[in-house]
Amino acid sequence: MPLVRMTFTPNHSPETRHAVADAVHAAMVATIDVPALDRFQILTVAEAGTELIYDRTFPDLERSDAFVIVEIQLAAGRSNDKKRALYAGIVERIAAATPVRPHDVMISLREVGRVDWSFGNGIAQYVPEG
Amino acid sequence: MPLVRMTFTPNHSPETRHAVADAVHAAMVATIDVPALDRFQILTVAEAGTELIYDRTFPDLERSDAFVIVEIQLAAGRSNDKKRALYAGIVERIAAATPVRPHDVMISLREVGRVDWSFGNGIAQYVPEG
Amino acid sequence: MPLVRMTFTPNHSPETRHAVADAVHAAMVATIDVPALDRFQILTVAEAGTELIYDRTFPDLERSDAFVIVEIQLAAGRSNDKKRALYAGIVERIAAATPVRPHDVMISLREVGRVDWSFGNGIAQYVPEG
Repeated sequence: MPLVRMTFTPNHSPETRHAVADAVHAAMVATIDVPALDRFQILTVAEAGTELIYDRTFPDLERSDAFVIVEIQLAAGRSNDKKRALYAGIVERIAAATPVRPHDVMISLREVGRVDWSFGNGIAQYVPEG
Repeated sequence: MPLVRMTFTPNHSPETRHAVADAVHAAMVATIDVPALDRFQILTVAEAGTELIYDRTFPDLERSDAFVIVEIQLAAGRSNDKKRALYAGIVERIAAATPVRPHDVMISLREVGRVDWSFGNGIAQYVPEG
Repeated sequence: MPLVRMTFTPNHSPETRHAVADAVHAAMVATIDVPALDRFQILTVAEAGTELIYDRTFPDLERSDAFVIVEIQLAAGRSNDKKRALYAGIVERIAAATPVRPHDVMISLREVGRVDWSFGNGIAQYVPEG
């Protein structure tokens, strides 16, 4: 059910972008019980300064020219601990597989209901009735 | 009040994209009481494999190269039945008017409050006071 | 914590787009207590008619070719009064600094939890434990 939108800069190569997407998905499977096949990701590239404006230090970080924003829309109900495990799992996997630094990974979750999703065919697969 | 964002692939022609947008809006008017003039839609195209990564079968579907994601941000409060009618109404209208198959239409709703919207002029038109 | 996404048309010059982004951020700082350094904005341009479809009058407005949509994802909990002050503050500052008219500024808020945010480094900065 999650839908993930990632905003990169031109400083991330296509290979890096794909590896970040892989890492984000692997972390979701490992930490918040997302099925391995439940993968839906949108990747965009935005030019820093004109298409992407971001502070370099807030609240106490050091962001570079290779900043990335990961927005995850997912079913409501994960505990705070699960969410923190997801954040840690994402940056660990990204750092292990790509040149992107942990300080450059911003993550934003957005919770929705299970009935708020149709995977296809016009059906609310998770809440087909009631 | 709804804001709709649709992500297509280059396999959808401009005419198909516009017809999908028409179908989505018509279904919203017919099934969840959206005013006919209340239409605000953003259409983007993403290259499958690099800009759009999606599973072809999860959870039990057959997606093609012409997959589309329809994200709808709308006022909270529609019943589950209304939401299911919306999903069915969208894919029916898309299938009737375009080559896009029902299995290729993913829909995601996101509910917000009525005060969370300004149509313009700096006013919260639905909750102007209180 | 807010993440702002703005959708412009090609009728807005790059200078206007940046000035709108500045105005939106200044209004957030002034009206809803966002820290001045807490600035994260994504700016996109969409061609009206094909990439951006919008009604010119709903519900009682006059939109031009220079329409802009401002989507703000922020921590839940601002009062209705704060939200209305934000809407007014955004259009006032945009009108003072750019050619964009108040009727052409649509604003949409989306509330999320404070734990739903990692600014970087894999940590939930606002809810590090509990």
